[in-house]
Amino acid sequence: MRVLVIHGPNLNLLGEREPAVYGTATLEEIDRALRELAEHLGVEVGCVQHNGEGEIIETLHGARGVYDAIVLNPGAYAHYSHAIADAIAAIGIPTIEVHLSNTAAREAFRHHSVTARACRGIIAGFGGASYLLALRALAENLAR
Amino acid sequence: MRVLVIHGPNLNLLGEREPAVYGTATLEEIDRALRELAEHLGVEVGCVQHNGEGEIIETLHGARGVYDAIVLNPGAYAHYSHAIADAIAAIGIPTIEVHLSNTAAREAFRHHSVTARACRGIIAGFGGASYLLALRALAENLAR
Amino acid sequence: MRVLVIHGPNLNLLGEREPAVYGTATLEEIDRALRELAEHLGVEVGCVQHNGEGEIIETLHGARGVYDAIVLNPGAYAHYSHAIADAIAAIGIPTIEVHLSNTAAREAFRHHSVTARACRGIIAGFGGASYLLALRALAENLAR
Amino acid sequence: MRVLVIHGPNLNLLGEREPAVYGTATLEEIDRALRELAEHLGVEVGCVQHNGEGEIIETLHGARGVYDAIVLNPGAYAHYSHAIADAIAAIGIPTIEVHLSNTAAREAFRHHSVTARACRGIIAGFGGASYLLALRALAENLAR
Amino acid sequence: MRVLVIHGPNLNLLGEREPAVYGTATLEEIDRALRELAEHLGVEVGCVQHNGEGEIIETLHGARGVYDAIVLNPGAYAHYSHAIADAIAAIGIPTIEVHLSNTAAREAFRHHSVTARACRGIIAGFGGASYLLALRALAENLAR
Amino acid sequence: MRVLVIHGPNLNLLGEREPAVYGTATLEEIDRALRELAEHLGVEVGCVQHNGEGEIIETLHGARGVYDAIVLNPGAYAHYSHAIADAIAAIGIPTIEVHLSNTAAREAFRHHSVTARACRGIIAGFGGASYLLALRALAENLAR
Amino acid sequence: MRVLVIHGPNLNLLGEREPAVYGTATLEEIDRALRELAEHLGVEVGCVQHNGEGEIIETLHGARGVYDAIVLNPGAYAHYSHAIADAIAAIGIPTIEVHLSNTAAREAFRHHSVTARACRGIIAGFGGASYLLALRALAENLAR
Amino acid sequence: MRVLVIHGPNLNLLGEREPAVYGTATLEEIDRALRELAEHLGVEVGCVQHNGEGEIIETLHGARGVYDAIVLNPGAYAHYSHAIADAIAAIGIPTIEVHLSNTAAREAFRHHSVTARACRGIIAGFGGASYLLALRALAENLAR
Amino acid sequence: MRVLVIHGPNLNLLGEREPAVYGTATLEEIDRALRELAEHLGVEVGCVQHNGEGEIIETLHGARGVYDAIVLNPGAYAHYSHAIADAIAAIGIPTIEVHLSNTAAREAFRHHSVTARACRGIIAGFGGASYLLALRALAENLAR
Amino acid sequence: MRVLVIHGPNLNLLGEREPAVYGTATLEEIDRALRELAEHLGVEVGCVQHNGEGEIIETLHGARGVYDAIVLNPGAYAHYSHAIADAIAAIGIPTIEVHLSNTAAREAFRHHSVTARACRGIIAGFGGASYLLALRALAENLAR
Amino acid sequence: MRVLVIHGPNLNLLGEREPAVYGTATLEEIDRALRELAEHLGVEVGCVQHNGEGEIIETLHGARGVYDAIVLNPGAYAHYSHAIADAIAAIGIPTIEVHLSNTAAREAFRHHSVTARACRGIIAGFGGASYLLALRALAENLAR
Amino acid sequence: MRVLVIHGPNLNLLGEREPAVYGTATLEEIDRALRELAEHLGVEVGCVQHNGEGEIIETLHGARGVYDAIVLNPGAYAHYSHAIADAIAAIGIPTIEVHLSNTAAREAFRHHSVTARACRGIIAGFGGASYLLALRALAENLAR
Repeated sequence: MRVLVIHGPNLNLLGEREPAVYGTATLEEIDRALRELAEHLGVEVGCVQHNGEGEIIETLHGARGVYDAIVLNPGAYAHYSHAIADAIAAIGIPTIEVHLSNTAAREAFRHHSVTARACRGIIAGFGGASYLLALRALAENLAR
Repeated sequence: MRVLVIHGPNLNLLGEREPAVYGTATLEEIDRALRELAEHLGVEVGCVQHNGEGEIIETLHGARGVYDAIVLNPGAYAHYSHAIADAIAAIGIPTIEVHLSNTAAREAFRHHSVTARACRGIIAGFGGASYLLALRALAENLAR
Repeated sequence: MRVLVIHGPNLNLLGEREPAVYGTATLEEIDRALRELAEHLGVEVGCVQHNGEGEIIETLHGARGVYDAIVLNPGAYAHYSHAIADAIAAIGIPTIEVHLSNTAAREAFRHHSVTARACRGIIAGFGGASYLLALRALAENLAR
Repeated sequence: MRVLVIHGPNLNLLGEREPAVYGTATLEEIDRALRELAEHLGVEVGCVQHNGEGEIIETLHGARGVYDAIVLNPGAYAHYSHAIADAIAAIGIPTIEVHLSNTAAREAFRHHSVTARACRGIIAGFGGASYLLALRALAENLAR
Repeated sequence: MRVLVIHGPNLNLLGEREPAVYGTATLEEIDRALRELAEHLGVEVGCVQHNGEGEIIETLHGARGVYDAIVLNPGAYAHYSHAIADAIAAIGIPTIEVHLSNTAAREAFRHHSVTARACRGIIAGFGGASYLLALRALAENLAR
Repeated sequence: MRVLVIHGPNLNLLGEREPAVYGTATLEEIDRALRELAEHLGVEVGCVQHNGEGEIIETLHGARGVYDAIVLNPGAYAHYSHAIADAIAAIGIPTIEVHLSNTAAREAFRHHSVTARACRGIIAGFGGASYLLALRALAENLAR
Repeated sequence: MRVLVIHGPNLNLLGEREPAVYGTATLEEIDRALRELAEHLGVEVGCVQHNGEGEIIETLHGARGVYDAIVLNPGAYAHYSHAIADAIAAIGIPTIEVHLSNTAAREAFRHHSVTARACRGIIAGFGGASYLLALRALAENLAR
Repeated sequence: MRVLVIHGPNLNLLGEREPAVYGTATLEEIDRALRELAEHLGVEVGCVQHNGEGEIIETLHGARGVYDAIVLNPGAYAHYSHAIADAIAAIGIPTIEVHLSNTAAREAFRHHSVTARACRGIIAGFGGASYLLALRALAENLAR
Repeated sequence: MRVLVIHGPNLNLLGEREPAVYGTATLEEIDRALRELAEHLGVEVGCVQHNGEGEIIETLHGARGVYDAIVLNPGAYAHYSHAIADAIAAIGIPTIEVHLSNTAAREAFRHHSVTARACRGIIAGFGGASYLLALRALAENLAR
Repeated sequence: MRVLVIHGPNLNLLGEREPAVYGTATLEEIDRALRELAEHLGVEVGCVQHNGEGEIIETLHGARGVYDAIVLNPGAYAHYSHAIADAIAAIGIPTIEVHLSNTAAREAFRHHSVTARACRGIIAGFGGASYLLALRALAENLAR
Repeated sequence: MRVLVIHGPNLNLLGEREPAVYGTATLEEIDRALRELAEHLGVEVGCVQHNGEGEIIETLHGARGVYDAIVLNPGAYAHYSHAIADAIAAIGIPTIEVHLSNTAAREAFRHHSVTARACRGIIAGFGGASYLLALRALAENLAR
Repeated sequence: MRVLVIHGPNLNLLGEREPAVYGTATLEEIDRALRELAEHLGVEVGCVQHNGEGEIIETLHGARGVYDAIVLNPGAYAHYSHAIADAIAAIGIPTIEVHLSNTAAREAFRHHSVTARACRGIIAGFGGASYLLALRALAENLAR
């Protein structure tokens, strides 16, 4: 099983950016933990980060035929990017949406995700471990 | 670590109830899987199911001093029970909200959770495995 | 055919409670009329009253394998109890929602029923006779 | 007792029109069943069908002094015709609103009836039998 | 100057219809008062009543080249008939909207008129005299 | 009969202020026309202009025992001053709301008047003549 | 292939009515162009105009068994006539909604069409040519 | 005079629960203060706490014929329990709604109380003293 | 302790104004009762009434350094005067909002108070006694 | 005449992506059909596809001085990209918005297009033929 | 050039009022800085502060013929005073709206200004320097 | 001090694009004026323009450690790009939002800025001078 992890906008600043909200782990540390867990679970994992909506869409398209599952942190795009949601629906690859913070406990505009409608599931509020839980869910074939 | 799992309304019918939406696993099977994983992770787990809002509140209250963490599937109460949300906030025990289905892909009233504001995180869409992922997150101390 | 009649919150006060809105018949009188009509129609009828949302849910659950149809007056729960609606959908027993008063002619919050989405039909505005019409509809197999 | 049954827009197509939603009975069959039940109940019944809002209003006006009660299926007009609601209020004849389908389980715009505010009661979801239940309710003097 | 007075839906019942709201004057009495005032003011007046939206639209169309001004009581159509509003805009004849009752003091749906956007002015709350004030306003060339 | 005319905020600029919207007549000219019509109708008229909400309220209070009726142009206060509406209801003197322009054809915030709920009627869209029509309606005892 | 073209309310005034919005072509000119194009495309075309909602519904009903496709300009009914939408769904004949103007660039109430939900497609903003494009789409079998 | 004090959901945790919001007094201390004040005022007082909506409803029902007045802290149920509001209206006993915190200064969902519509008055923001003020208001017959 | 009581718009008419809603006590009687209770409680009390929003703001400003606490009945300003709310926040003197009537049981616009967000508490529904309860709360130091 | 066709996000997947919604034609097939029709109509056509909002904006900018008209399928951007709408307005080149599916019959968020406000017209629901109809409309100079 | 600076409600408390939000500078210090900058820029400046809506309106009126430009801090009136907006539009003097704090980052009700619609521009978030920037913009003729 | 000026989407067309709304100055002229003012104020300034949301985000990221302050004209992204707002919050560099036009006086969707919540202040309505005022505010250290 090959799993693609897509980090959305502003996640490259992780660790420096508002640590009270997003924690002190950097994106590199999260990616390293993902690779370690992937090895442990016997799956392959690829990690990319994009700030642009169009680039996320194209990376989703490019996953067809290459990856079996996707972990996507759409960042703030979760709340308005119907185009990313359409891309997830279009490629038909099982996708899990993750968020570092518990978006339901933050500003009102973060309480609803338009991208999640096209995903299999959502995991939010566990910091970098949100990704790890999603990877495990995919590796153990839990995303129906 | 002792973890309390609370199954909310209608979950006792699991396996029989709308299997296209909720899967064919019964609550007993989920509880058994939870106990096996708990043993594997070296944590204790207790499981209860309640259909009443007041009973869920009282079980949450009773967890103080007994349990270190809670996994709560509030069912449909997620969408209107401010009283359960207040209870979670009142007891101060780290709580993870889980849902069997991906609520973001269902009816509009299920797109926002009022109970999640008081939780540490949310895991939805993995069928019975939503509970297992939450238990692991707690056991591995991932719920900040 | 066995039919379960569930009277929701505050209906035990019928006859005393705001008679201008709800009429002067008591719940006992309604139940007696239901039993008489049931006998006339050759069906069995059971009647319960609950003020608690959880109890209504559990009575709905308990009807599985015992009753063939349900007449439910959810009272004010009609307007917010998604948990009762989920219970009706879960048990799969044909259910008719009834109201004593014509809710469409009262306060705005009573104009929409969230429980009715899971029912086969709705009968409102006929006082205690709303129940009788529902019983007849079930006995004559009119609820598709 | 003389009862006027008014079938609103598109009901002339009954039986052919979306049978999954509206059933396979034709309007003629419903009218015949109404006449049989009327005879059985010892009441007179007249049946008309109109697609125009103005014609429904004028038929309502014309019922004054001729009919003692009305059964009205306003079809989609239920959801926006304040003019029909005003007509019902104006003539002061007890009126029951009926719908073939359970409108609460369909599109959001069908969840609220503006015409029902002027009626005595509402019966929905029983196919053609919605009319029969309404006729019985009127014949037995149940519409307060 | 020739002025056309159009009475909308249910106004033919005036005098009988909810006299607490609409007064005891009949439409005939109002038309007679309009004719007397017209004679006094030296203008011609024609009066019609329609319950149908399409008929009101066609009467508005027919006024072109025949009448110099219009007094329209759209009744409940005021609150949703964009088609009547379009007709008023299309014919380009100065039109005054009148209502018998003070719609701003009644149900919420009556607080906004969509037809008034295409009129020159609005007069509401004076019973039958709303028409007389409108006729005078037109005769004295007050509707800019 | 003594009638008090209250001109609300910004009406002192009439004639200079946005003449395309409000016309070229000055407030003095309107008051002169009001006095002439009052004399013709055999009623007394007093005219005041206030820009302050509190002053309008106090002038309304002061009218008790002095004036028999009121013509009020609340200007923009029409759209939010519940305090002026309460004052009109408190004094119990028949009040007609007038506007120079047809507020239903302007910005959305002008489509609903909160002060009109406490008035007997509303006349809008006739420029300064809106006042004259209101005065006549009061003098002829048309405001029920 | 026989195609029925239905012109909705106020379209009989085309050419005279607000030419800045709707252009200077008359309905007769549009119908002539439709007939010429029909002949060119080898299809039959019939054209009717109705101002009444009920008449549009009945013309839709009458098209069954006579016409293979419909071009409908519902005018302002597009924005509230759920009854026309139900009629289109009921008859099951492929229908294209057309508008002369680009409704998305006009008042907010014109931004959403309730009738379009029951149509195969929508063409708006091309003046009379909206009809011609729709006719061609039907003749070339483009409306799936 | 006998007064029943009903403490709603989560109030049993008072003193421990979010003391920054709810203060440090325990429910026992509040009840003791209530009993002392009751004795001082010459009235009888009974105190109960319930977390369940149905139990609050049944305690309200049971107050008929036993208590002359009620002090109710509905907690979060204030914001959605139409069933409790119906119960208060049904029993006809003067009821005062109290809240420890100033709900108008907290989250938006706490700004409106649906239960208060059935009460005589509301006292909020005084910590445990909200109850004492309500008791005094009842004892001094201030709740009209 | 010195307490300032501010009566807002229209309260000078108390006793005469809509006695069914506001009771028959005059403002003078309320002020006299306030002074008697103040003397009893050993506090000083000053009472003013203003109809103007700006005057209420300035009286609030003037209270700094003179009064220790404020009882404010903002009347209808409660529902839209963010400027008064800002003034209360600016002066930092503990303020209690009072209303004569139970605003939660009246028109929808009265269900939310924007001024209450800046107050310590709210007391509504006790007629003139709302003021007395507030004075006592302040004198007994209950407004945290 | 030179016409630029811009395919928006996810359209590169056409034919593979949700064929039940979008049909089985590929983008290449649509472009080939466009080129054939262009040749037939004697116009030049250029075709590009972009997934990024910024790229669509820049392609629109680049069309100035090169193309005489534009056919734009904004995909999901239609529903929130005010920046693309601004770009269309900025360049002043006649633009037609097209959609493959009938967006009015899909999810609610697809019922309104913010980009269409800056276009001349809209054609939706004809699959790939939506483009062909738009090209013809431009070639025949129908987009006013 | 003569510029009038109008400070709205509660600004007289500047320096004392919520310094965390509004800074520690007093209104006198701001006015002194304005006078110094005015001298430097070669313009005249007048400064007034009003808490009343009516007084702000009258000061705006009085500026006609005396001042060439206005700097207005409407305080909380920005969010509901359509009467002040009308006054700005009526006098036709270029006006700049200023706020001390960045209102877009505060409570939701401060996110939209109804007065700004009548102004030339808005400057917010620079504390007292908001005024200085506005004065410079006017002196350098930047407000189109 | 080094200041980065970011021009958002469509601003490269300045001078050509809708000059009635945006003025006739080109982006080059604005940048030249910015550089002249920067030199005068003794600060460094860099200017970039981007049409893509992702590029704006990356330019914001790249400013860390290079620039001390930012002037951002987000164009239409102001109204929906939560991702840009998150980027501004993430980098922690003082940012001022500017707009050429007075967005509060344009279409409703432009009345609220979601990006401004993360900025220090906003300057809108001064054409190209909005940038100059922002640069001065930063150079003079006015953005708290």
